[in-house]
Amino acid sequence: MAQEAPTNVSKPIPVGTASFEEKRAALLKAFDRKVPPEYHLRAEFLEDPPSDVSTIPANCGILNEEEIKITEEYDAVGLAKEIAEGKYKAVEVVTAFSKRAIIAHQLTGCLTQWFMVEALEQAKQLDIYLEKNKRPMGRLHGVPVSIKDHIPVAGTSSSLGYLSTIVEDESDCQMVQILRGAGAVFYCKTNQPQSLMHLESDSLWGRVLNPFNINLSAGGSTGGEAALIALMGSPLGVGTDIGGSIRCPAAFCGIYGYKPTSHILPMRGFLPTPVAAELNIPASTGPMCRSIRDIDLFMTTILEAKPYLLDPNLVPISWTGSRTPPNSHRLKIGVISNDGFIQPQPPVAKAISWARKLLSDPVHASQVEVKEFKPFGAADAWSKIRRMYWPDGGDLSKKAIVSTGEPLHSLTEWIWEEQQESGMQTAQAVNLLRKERDDFRHKFAKSWEEQDVDVVIGPAFVGPASAHDTAFYWTYTSLYNMVDYPGVVIPTPIRAISGEQYDQGYTPLSDACQDVKKLWGKSDFKGAPINLQLVARRYHDNELLSALSLLKNILGLAY
Amino acid sequence: MAQEAPTNVSKPIPVGTASFEEKRAALLKAFDRKVPPEYHLRAEFLEDPPSDVSTIPANCGILNEEEIKITEEYDAVGLAKEIAEGKYKAVEVVTAFSKRAIIAHQLTGCLTQWFMVEALEQAKQLDIYLEKNKRPMGRLHGVPVSIKDHIPVAGTSSSLGYLSTIVEDESDCQMVQILRGAGAVFYCKTNQPQSLMHLESDSLWGRVLNPFNINLSAGGSTGGEAALIALMGSPLGVGTDIGGSIRCPAAFCGIYGYKPTSHILPMRGFLPTPVAAELNIPASTGPMCRSIRDIDLFMTTILEAKPYLLDPNLVPISWTGSRTPPNSHRLKIGVISNDGFIQPQPPVAKAISWARKLLSDPVHASQVEVKEFKPFGAADAWSKIRRMYWPDGGDLSKKAIVSTGEPLHSLTEWIWEEQQESGMQTAQAVNLLRKERDDFRHKFAKSWEEQDVDVVIGPAFVGPASAHDTAFYWTYTSLYNMVDYPGVVIPTPIRAISGEQYDQGYTPLSDACQDVKKLWGKSDFKGAPINLQLVARRYHDNELLSALSLLKNILGLAY
Repeated sequence: MAQEAPTNVSKPIPVGTASFEEKRAALLKAFDRKVPPEYHLRAEFLEDPPSDVSTIPANCGILNEEEIKITEEYDAVGLAKEIAEGKYKAVEVVTAFSKRAIIAHQLTGCLTQWFMVEALEQAKQLDIYLEKNKRPMGRLHGVPVSIKDHIPVAGTSSSLGYLSTIVEDESDCQMVQILRGAGAVFYCKTNQPQSLMHLESDSLWGRVLNPFNINLSAGGSTGGEAALIALMGSPLGVGTDIGGSIRCPAAFCGIYGYKPTSHILPMRGFLPTPVAAELNIPASTGPMCRSIRDIDLFMTTILEAKPYLLDPNLVPISWTGSRTPPNSHRLKIGVISNDGFIQPQPPVAKAISWARKLLSDPVHASQVEVKEFKPFGAADAWSKIRRMYWPDGGDLSKKAIVSTGEPLHSLTEWIWEEQQESGMQTAQAVNLLRKERDDFRHKFAKSWEEQDVDVVIGPAFVGPASAHDTAFYWTYTSLYNMVDYPGVVIPTPIRAISGEQYDQGYTPLSDACQDVKKLWGKSDFKGAPINLQLVARRYHDNELLSALSLLKNILGLAY
Repeated sequence: MAQEAPTNVSKPIPVGTASFEEKRAALLKAFDRKVPPEYHLRAEFLEDPPSDVSTIPANCGILNEEEIKITEEYDAVGLAKEIAEGKYKAVEVVTAFSKRAIIAHQLTGCLTQWFMVEALEQAKQLDIYLEKNKRPMGRLHGVPVSIKDHIPVAGTSSSLGYLSTIVEDESDCQMVQILRGAGAVFYCKTNQPQSLMHLESDSLWGRVLNPFNINLSAGGSTGGEAALIALMGSPLGVGTDIGGSIRCPAAFCGIYGYKPTSHILPMRGFLPTPVAAELNIPASTGPMCRSIRDIDLFMTTILEAKPYLLDPNLVPISWTGSRTPPNSHRLKIGVISNDGFIQPQPPVAKAISWARKLLSDPVHASQVEVKEFKPFGAADAWSKIRRMYWPDGGDLSKKAIVSTGEPLHSLTEWIWEEQQESGMQTAQAVNLLRKERDDFRHKFAKSWEEQDVDVVIGPAFVGPASAHDTAFYWTYTSLYNMVDYPGVVIPTPIRAISGEQYDQGYTPLSDACQDVKKLWGKSDFKGAPINLQLVARRYHDNELLSALSLLKNILGLAY
């Protein structure tokens, strides 16, 4: 085993049957065979790792000065510019990020696949192209882009986070095709939860750790992306979100994560067979990154390729993004202290106060009107959406997982706990469930109108990153999947510190609220970043980015 | 019975149980009680009516000169203008249309409800408003608008075309609310098929006849609207379409009918419970009218009210309609001779040739590029969509119809014929059906791209209006519900004449094609109008109207 790169494991995943473990070991070995020994972290970083591993990549001795600079000092926009202008070769950039990604993986288990050799070949071709044509292939020329494991990239495999779903992909899905056409370079795929349908990224490839506190989760389902980008092993990644799967991990790891309204970005081929959940709740795909302008870059790149021409399920939208002119009047922004269901844990409450204070500064009064906002029906939405995810009772997935001797992980069991009784629904039951959803959506929209806001800012999650296997309450993100409103999570300067206490006057809003308080008492969340979430009306994605652009200055956000 | 207004009946609907017939008679009596005897048509018009009843309204002696002028010489835009400028009072306009509507009803059975007294009260208030405020209440100030029976209007009832579904509506649905707010006056509701789900408008209120040949169908499901508007008993009506229900009756009766892409116009409340068909195929609502500019008027009125603010299931679209600037290059228009599945009957083939000839005139070559177009997978789409309409096997509706002793009408039985065997589907079966649909949509879009067209023009139906109870093949409309592309049917100067023959070289494209030829031989379609259908890509509704506006001059269409 001396040749293998060990990965940091703060809490092992459960063990399956011998036959399953044998297959799993073979997969891990095959992964590892691709990693040159000189990229193995020294034992000291893994044997007794610090809680915060975020500084290790720059200090481990594997990256040179230039590689540290390339990976730390640029966002995707910056990298694309430097490559286009000839300051860096694509090969240099891809080398730096490939190296940093495999370091990040050893620290947090964030990858499922890593293919530096193939990526360098791609990068070499791009360098030749630029040399020859004197112009970049597209907006992402030479920019490394990391991809969530279930999204097909030609020549790699994809899965839903468990063994029986692994398939080899011969061709790119439409999204990847567009990115590749714009010059993006693919070099790794990232880890996700067993089943994709919860927030602990604990697939058969291992558990993803939070880079800022390895005893905490990196979130899910796009947890590998979040940890990787937070460790600067990728400038830009692609995630998916049906309950918070872009926003939660981005928030847990302190990066940007944007869930557009559904059916704007191409998801064709993202799943080998559609999940029954989407009968009720549409999923979205979106970027995870380090800056607002990278969100714009990603959206512009995809949408100017007119993906709707080949995927008529998409709604054609012109992207104006953060350049969208604001309404002539002041931006009306609602601030959510709590959703009436669960009081957020102390550092989140602190971040809300931080934002409210900055937004309410009289110096911004001509641009922003701040209101208190109460989202409609959060408790109700949570109970509804948990049913709406499983019109098939979860049985199909469950059977598929255990069919290979793979053990069910604790959150995988938890998501089906309440749903199995009802089992496979009928078409008519689904029909009535969708009516329930639509009735909820109408009430939610009416309440939004009555509160008269353009956008709302509030918690991205009930707390900072959860301790492993305890991310039970996605209420602050899944609410906006229920109504299909676009949401973006943004980093704040706030970090969790040890020993923070709930307000003395705290009274629980619900049993769930009390449960969340208990969870707070059980772990040390030290160092976990705190993000907030900005939300706009359905299909008001341009308006959302426009508002974000205004907030950038007020809140002091990146680019 | 002398006090009752008899209606023209070319083919009675089936008779139910005594208890059902008693209830039905009571409903018809209640309808009739509202009709003043002076609006009863003289017996001569009904006892031995001509095949073409379209000239009777102007000649029956019930309307005065002014009323004939008001109902015949204006579209909705024209009426709104004259009322706003004081040339006509709303009361005069509403009187004229109410009278003409009840005449139309006696000739074709096009109404389910008629409420002139209430309408005149509304009109009086509007006249007072205009007098007082010196400006109209909105774009439709004083314009009578007819509404398909299942769409809720406060103070009327609605139904799905059979007894057990009749409910009294206390409030307007969102669509009607917006129209009312713009000054529209409601005076009648229009007839539709038993179950809504086929093309013969044969509800318990009676069967709708085609005004130009009463032995033919007015189409469905918005058949009452089509007959009423064709007889100029309404300038503007609201229909719904999940397989052709706006476009088919509009085509059968020679008026404009526009099915937008789904989720653009508000349909909230249109059905008391959602139909399972919409799990797979979304319905649309849209206008039926006499001019292109009325389509613009309708769309502008609804969309400027921002219906998406209260119905977040809607996609916000800015309506530019026929004012949308054309692409800089020439409009690429595909002409469909046949869909590869069913050769259209002779007068439709003639209309296609007519359009192709005008479009291909070299004088328009700088504006239009004409291509032949073959729609992808018409036969496959037809077999798929018929399954997709009935994920519940149709049982629920069937039971609801017969529960009151109401007999199943022949096309109602026909729609379920092949579906009952499979019965109620599971959520997973629906899920897989939706995948089939999406796979089809992708292939369709790819073929459209490969054929490189902006819009296509082709048949609206396999023939002119069908003989009663024989509208089996909706293939030319339902294809665009399958892919959710917007379509508008437009009148041509072509009319069916007796004894037209298929081309000598005809060879059937399918069994269905042969069946359609047989149907052609069985009836005399004399006088039936022929419409064509213009279709654009999904959510390219503005582009569709822009193209229509260009075609207006080339084809010589109304306004």
